[in-house]
Amino acid sequence: MLKQPPVVREGDLSLLVDLYELAMAQAYWSEGMDDTAVFSLFFRELPENRNFVLACGQQNVVGIIESLAFSDEHIERLESLDRFQPEFLDWLRDFRFSGSVYAVPEGTPLFPQEPLLEVEGPIAEVQLLESLVMNYVHLESALASKSVRLTFAAGGRPVVDFGMRRTHGLDAAHRGVRAYRLAGLTGTSNVLAGLDFNMPVYGTMAHSFVQACPDEMDAFRIYASLYPGTTLLVDTYDTRSAVDRIIKWLKDEPEVSVGGIRLDSGDLAAEAVDCRKMLDEAGLTDIKIMASGGLDEYRIAKLCSSGAPIDGFGVGTAIGVAKDGPALELAFKLTEYASLPRMKNSPGKQSFPGPKQVYRRLGTDGRIAEDVVSGRDEVFDGTPLLRPVMKEGRIIEGAIAPLDDQVKAASKSIDTLPERFRSLDPVNESPVVISEFLRALQRDTLERVSKK
Amino acid sequence: MLKQPPVVREGDLSLLVDLYELAMAQAYWSEGMDDTAVFSLFFRELPENRNFVLACGQQNVVGIIESLAFSDEHIERLESLDRFQPEFLDWLRDFRFSGSVYAVPEGTPLFPQEPLLEVEGPIAEVQLLESLVMNYVHLESALASKSVRLTFAAGGRPVVDFGMRRTHGLDAAHRGVRAYRLAGLTGTSNVLAGLDFNMPVYGTMAHSFVQACPDEMDAFRIYASLYPGTTLLVDTYDTRSAVDRIIKWLKDEPEVSVGGIRLDSGDLAAEAVDCRKMLDEAGLTDIKIMASGGLDEYRIAKLCSSGAPIDGFGVGTAIGVAKDGPALELAFKLTEYASLPRMKNSPGKQSFPGPKQVYRRLGTDGRIAEDVVSGRDEVFDGTPLLRPVMKEGRIIEGAIAPLDDQVKAASKSIDTLPERFRSLDPVNESPVVISEFLRALQRDTLERVSKK
Repeated sequence: MLKQPPVVREGDLSLLVDLYELAMAQAYWSEGMDDTAVFSLFFRELPENRNFVLACGQQNVVGIIESLAFSDEHIERLESLDRFQPEFLDWLRDFRFSGSVYAVPEGTPLFPQEPLLEVEGPIAEVQLLESLVMNYVHLESALASKSVRLTFAAGGRPVVDFGMRRTHGLDAAHRGVRAYRLAGLTGTSNVLAGLDFNMPVYGTMAHSFVQACPDEMDAFRIYASLYPGTTLLVDTYDTRSAVDRIIKWLKDEPEVSVGGIRLDSGDLAAEAVDCRKMLDEAGLTDIKIMASGGLDEYRIAKLCSSGAPIDGFGVGTAIGVAKDGPALELAFKLTEYASLPRMKNSPGKQSFPGPKQVYRRLGTDGRIAEDVVSGRDEVFDGTPLLRPVMKEGRIIEGAIAPLDDQVKAASKSIDTLPERFRSLDPVNESPVVISEFLRALQRDTLERVSKK
Repeated sequence: MLKQPPVVREGDLSLLVDLYELAMAQAYWSEGMDDTAVFSLFFRELPENRNFVLACGQQNVVGIIESLAFSDEHIERLESLDRFQPEFLDWLRDFRFSGSVYAVPEGTPLFPQEPLLEVEGPIAEVQLLESLVMNYVHLESALASKSVRLTFAAGGRPVVDFGMRRTHGLDAAHRGVRAYRLAGLTGTSNVLAGLDFNMPVYGTMAHSFVQACPDEMDAFRIYASLYPGTTLLVDTYDTRSAVDRIIKWLKDEPEVSVGGIRLDSGDLAAEAVDCRKMLDEAGLTDIKIMASGGLDEYRIAKLCSSGAPIDGFGVGTAIGVAKDGPALELAFKLTEYASLPRMKNSPGKQSFPGPKQVYRRLGTDGRIAEDVVSGRDEVFDGTPLLRPVMKEGRIIEGAIAPLDDQVKAASKSIDTLPERFRSLDPVNESPVVISEFLRALQRDTLERVSKK
């Protein structure tokens, strides 16, 4: 019986690869095809309800690339597949990525045809990275692209991640929090991720605690004494009577410190209005009202626009699985090999060959006026978004900012979105212009490959 | 600057917990509340398009539970949160789960109100497991519940997982494959997962290989020579002309071994019909046609019912993120504490108190006739689905079958689904009956807690 490991070990990431990458690598190797290739990670279309993708993970993935290697044990396991030649396995044993990576900063809003990252290097080496890079970047970008919408809907009110139980696995539970932080969320319930990614960790009680105590008030008393300023969960049995009893209790014992109450079911708007009124009339204006329970950006927007007196939101499922858009159609495409532009000609899949740059030009209002997607060596007005982060297989010193700085930069970058792109509804609009050079290159390349 | 680990380490899983679990554990500890609690993992509703959940992961999660522990480093990190008392941290330092787990076999189709697993033990210990258990089981159950539908649609034709690039992170890419195998998929493109979970690994070439070669035919020749019986990707430039050239080539060089072609874009049904005709007319009836590219159960069902001559399917995004139902609304609820049944009374959230059993009764046709959800100690006709897998914190010897046996049992279990539940459309029907005892317990408990 095989041992089935509960989590993927960092040292095993080189085997976390699609078989065809290895098959192609062996074919390149056996044919002596070792010229430089450029692969571009981009998307042709947005998920249905999105106006942009918040690109995350594309800089940090180089941390994995730099250390990727095949151990003797990996080689033995690959041998067992009976598909690889001993000399190719020797090549794998010596494998360290020797190429370059260009990436947009963490937390950059992007539009169709704009690369999140480009990888350049000997073709077999880059090919081997495809699935791992796509997986790594897709997770964070999918979760960030969803969760940033929650911050738009909440209009400045704190939004806290409660999603660990719903994210797809342990890696998503953990690294998703990095994406939420880049997207502007306020905190997380997830202890390890909060500690690892320097995000405030929140959480007080579940219904189970209230249910286990002899009486709801016992639960509240225990918490207020252990955790002064705590938030009490009030909907286990009956929300209004719970709040009523809290009010009486705080009247009798004014030294008790309660910071807030949390509503987790029912008509949140109506409950919030009633609870606020009860609390205010008792002079407890400092007690905050938090809401959770099946919230997404639409429900939050509705709660906010209805004027519901809710001070913050806890969100789980919606952001944990990026519920209405769990997949971004990221493609990792060969765009140049041996100095020749490359593209395929599959129906309905428009792409542009060659290494690229994206120039983002802001208007006088500080918002994105135009993005020019150009050849890498072209020069346009604006800020070039793709920046070198890895060269000759090593992370470029200082090229990747510490996470706290990335978060600040991401926040500024999100602020450059024109107001209409912050809408929860699709605007079906793009600021992207393709340069004349790229258009010509596409025509020429199409003509060349169609002669084949 | 914090080190930001690229993957979660197995040894750190004890910190992969929602803060409120730790807060509640400290509260239970400080109050001396250490009676036995029963928590039940179940769901009240199915995702929109589903007729059942294929429960996976609920037995295997005990592998994680058994080894869960807090190291000195973990304790230090928890100290930094400034929320925990030294004596409670000592309690954590000594923590090893000492309770019991009951779970249904891996790959069991379940319906609303049927527990996937129940955990029993000192309340603080069980509470600590909540988020980890939910996350672990949710991943596999969500992906299995989606991917089993692909096998229904394909009606016996092989379906291969191509989804690594889309799954939410590395853990999902890896452990998802275990779920696909339990759901009946034929293979995976993912090397590490295929090796770890003993599933055949498939994959030949991407468009990039064809594009990098001087000519499409070069790509095909290289592959046929390196990988006899290979499957050639034919849609990089023009599918029909690629197939035309393959036919001429195999006519000229009959010793060349090509096993199949893969279509990855365009009108797959029409392309398959044309290619099959071309191949058959050339006497190449043995060459199989594989299809991929944005496939899901609906597209596969349509292709199959249209009679498209497709021999197998590669599926990525649809199963990788369980696209139309990425989240199952799993709940982990306290149902008993200190021998008293427990439940909450939140609006619209029906649940039943007390430890449970599910008796599955098959009809004479071998299909599910009725499931009785009962109290744990009740006895009904049929097979009890919840079985003890962990006792006193240790996995019960022999209680968890090796994966190969789990897969066989899952296949049989899936076969017990009445035909209508295998429909891709919702049947809005459930074979579940709640026992009289549980209904009475619910009434009594509601009455008791509403007096609070």
